[in-house]
Amino acid sequence: MAPVSVDPDRIWADLMSLGAMTEPARPYTRRAFSPLFSQGRAFLARRLEEAGLEVRTDAAGNLIGRLEGSDPAAGVIALGSHSDTVPGGGRFDGVAGVAAAVEVARALSEGDARLRHTIEVIDCLAEEPTDFGLSCVGSRGLCGALDAAMLAMTSPAGERLGDALRAVGGDPDRIELARRGDLRAFLELHIEQGPVLEATGTEIGIVTSIVGIRRLEIVFEGEAAHAGTAPMHLRRDAGVAAAACMLQVRRIADRLAAEGQAYFVATVGIVQVEPGGSNVVPGRARIVIDARSSDQRVTDRFVDEIGRHSLECASEFRVARSSFAVLSDGPPAACDPLLRDALAQAAGELGFSLCDIASGAGHDAAFLARICPSAMVFIPCLRGMSHTPDEWAEPLAVAQGAAVLLQTVQNLDAAV
Amino acid sequence: MAPVSVDPDRIWADLMSLGAMTEPARPYTRRAFSPLFSQGRAFLARRLEEAGLEVRTDAAGNLIGRLEGSDPAAGVIALGSHSDTVPGGGRFDGVAGVAAAVEVARALSEGDARLRHTIEVIDCLAEEPTDFGLSCVGSRGLCGALDAAMLAMTSPAGERLGDALRAVGGDPDRIELARRGDLRAFLELHIEQGPVLEATGTEIGIVTSIVGIRRLEIVFEGEAAHAGTAPMHLRRDAGVAAAACMLQVRRIADRLAAEGQAYFVATVGIVQVEPGGSNVVPGRARIVIDARSSDQRVTDRFVDEIGRHSLECASEFRVARSSFAVLSDGPPAACDPLLRDALAQAAGELGFSLCDIASGAGHDAAFLARICPSAMVFIPCLRGMSHTPDEWAEPLAVAQGAAVLLQTVQNLDAAV
Repeated sequence: MAPVSVDPDRIWADLMSLGAMTEPARPYTRRAFSPLFSQGRAFLARRLEEAGLEVRTDAAGNLIGRLEGSDPAAGVIALGSHSDTVPGGGRFDGVAGVAAAVEVARALSEGDARLRHTIEVIDCLAEEPTDFGLSCVGSRGLCGALDAAMLAMTSPAGERLGDALRAVGGDPDRIELARRGDLRAFLELHIEQGPVLEATGTEIGIVTSIVGIRRLEIVFEGEAAHAGTAPMHLRRDAGVAAAACMLQVRRIADRLAAEGQAYFVATVGIVQVEPGGSNVVPGRARIVIDARSSDQRVTDRFVDEIGRHSLECASEFRVARSSFAVLSDGPPAACDPLLRDALAQAAGELGFSLCDIASGAGHDAAFLARICPSAMVFIPCLRGMSHTPDEWAEPLAVAQGAAVLLQTVQNLDAAV
Repeated sequence: MAPVSVDPDRIWADLMSLGAMTEPARPYTRRAFSPLFSQGRAFLARRLEEAGLEVRTDAAGNLIGRLEGSDPAAGVIALGSHSDTVPGGGRFDGVAGVAAAVEVARALSEGDARLRHTIEVIDCLAEEPTDFGLSCVGSRGLCGALDAAMLAMTSPAGERLGDALRAVGGDPDRIELARRGDLRAFLELHIEQGPVLEATGTEIGIVTSIVGIRRLEIVFEGEAAHAGTAPMHLRRDAGVAAAACMLQVRRIADRLAAEGQAYFVATVGIVQVEPGGSNVVPGRARIVIDARSSDQRVTDRFVDEIGRHSLECASEFRVARSSFAVLSDGPPAACDPLLRDALAQAAGELGFSLCDIASGAGHDAAFLARICPSAMVFIPCLRGMSHTPDEWAEPLAVAQGAAVLLQTVQNLDAAV
């Protein structure tokens, strides 16, 4: 049996081709459900078909390429990540994992030995937060966690997630079909999105666990008024209440992070102040909080505290806190110990330096971990930057990560 | 000489007739330069002609009705406001002052005694912000402040203000003809657009001054980062810096307003946090502050303080304050003390309760004050609401304000 290996140039060419599919004025942006996103998926589908894989879109809108194994009873080893981006994001977050998975399947397809296991490449739909207020749409579907309430969530433009899902080839009316019971393993390659691997000169990170992410929406409602004639003491300014609440989020998060009981961060990334005229006192303000921890109890404490403080902020500025809602709540997920060992063994066989590392970012693998053993490989990225156009990973780093995936799949297939 | 008085029913009928001239789908909207605006002006011109006034449109597009006095050397007493509205505005802002002025002239014209002074009713063109980016177009023209650069301003549709002016009967090529040197007084009635008169049960507000408006833009720039992987203590979060600054704006404004040295309000109505994803630490945040005072020195103090505090906010959260810019700066205008006394005396003679009040909104009278003694009468309006279809003033309140104008004109004419 001839040795099979990944081709760094092919991976890089695919990555750069996908990166070029961006909103021209806002690189690198390929939002889930957008025409550019569909363009990226058409590209991926062509690449998978050219490699001899059978391509379909499942009920949850995941793009899946399938390379049939010789033993139907062996089940499926899946590899993947996501091809959507945040607004003004980078070319590697998610996309590197998809491109690496495509290359692993392509290399295996080209080799002369057929694997016992079926291999699937999965481009999970909408891992990044969407206009519907939900993230990891596709991987939720794969583990049966995409429910009717989520499908009924609406965008600011009034579109339902279910309808958007249908438009990208999903089937919201039969969403249960997306749930998988045949996966034996899920492996995801991802850039670290943090500074550790680069700083320590380590080539491969074996992920130990993935933080849980809880998203909260807080809306303050006061009364819009003329900025010239409404005296300060009579105002009901929703914008100031939101500002006070944003500061509290930061104070509480700083304290919980410094305590060190668990990894903890909290961010206000969305701030909407309405009606948004310079000469109008804001009547409504909405913020979205992203809180993450490796320990749900720490997130619970955060939510309790900001619940109390946000009411105080509303009261101080004479406005109502009209919404305090959990938009989403993903628990932390541990990576499978046996798969972690398999990844470490493969990296070692290939001569790469490696270390264990926790993931501060959420990943599709956290949802897949609910239905099958899942694990992740991190590769170094420049200065830990992510969700910015400056996001960067070296071609060699991407190729090394893909090589670890390929070696791991081969080892798993050769084992029992 | 028979007593002359205003007719409340006639004023109200004119107001409601003008209110009915609105975009049907967006009451109450009669934007300057629109066909509806011209329809309103044709209505006003007919009413003025019926009352025996000579009607013309000046070079700055102001509609002017003139009732000649017996003594050409006595000069002109002008009364007026504006008949254009904001989009989705009300039926009283500006229009009440025009309707009251029409009634005063009509009552005087019908009376059997001719005044020494010539009386003019002026419907100032385009007091509200226009698509050209300029407000108070007509009153700027009356005081010689409508210059060539302003006439060259263009709308988003590419039309020049000068051409729009010509279309409503103005003469942009001889704009200097609009400048007046013959006005002895300008009196403007307006709804308060604030809650004070209603809350205190006061019938007439004698405006002491019209605030100056200074607009500031502050931009904070940090570094966008992944909301999951950027540890709290390493963040450079521009959104939190902006929130801290917004709170400082409020604290300082509360204090300056409470000091009572002058009328003061400050508002953050525009807040932009970028890139605006829930899972991205904000890299850039922009706020626009609208600060208004009857005393520029108080605004100066505000700008000094927020200048220092905004730098501290930037420093605390490790970001740069990349912009601190004055976007516009209109000085306050004091109402003429003798005219204020005359208005107060007339209100007293009529038995109305009255108080001094500062105007937090800009008005045509602020420009007229540059060329002649100017003063304003405020009447109560429902819950201080303005720039909304719910804007409302009672028929009695409008009639009482008009009666004060009429009495004042008669008193002024009888004086030296």
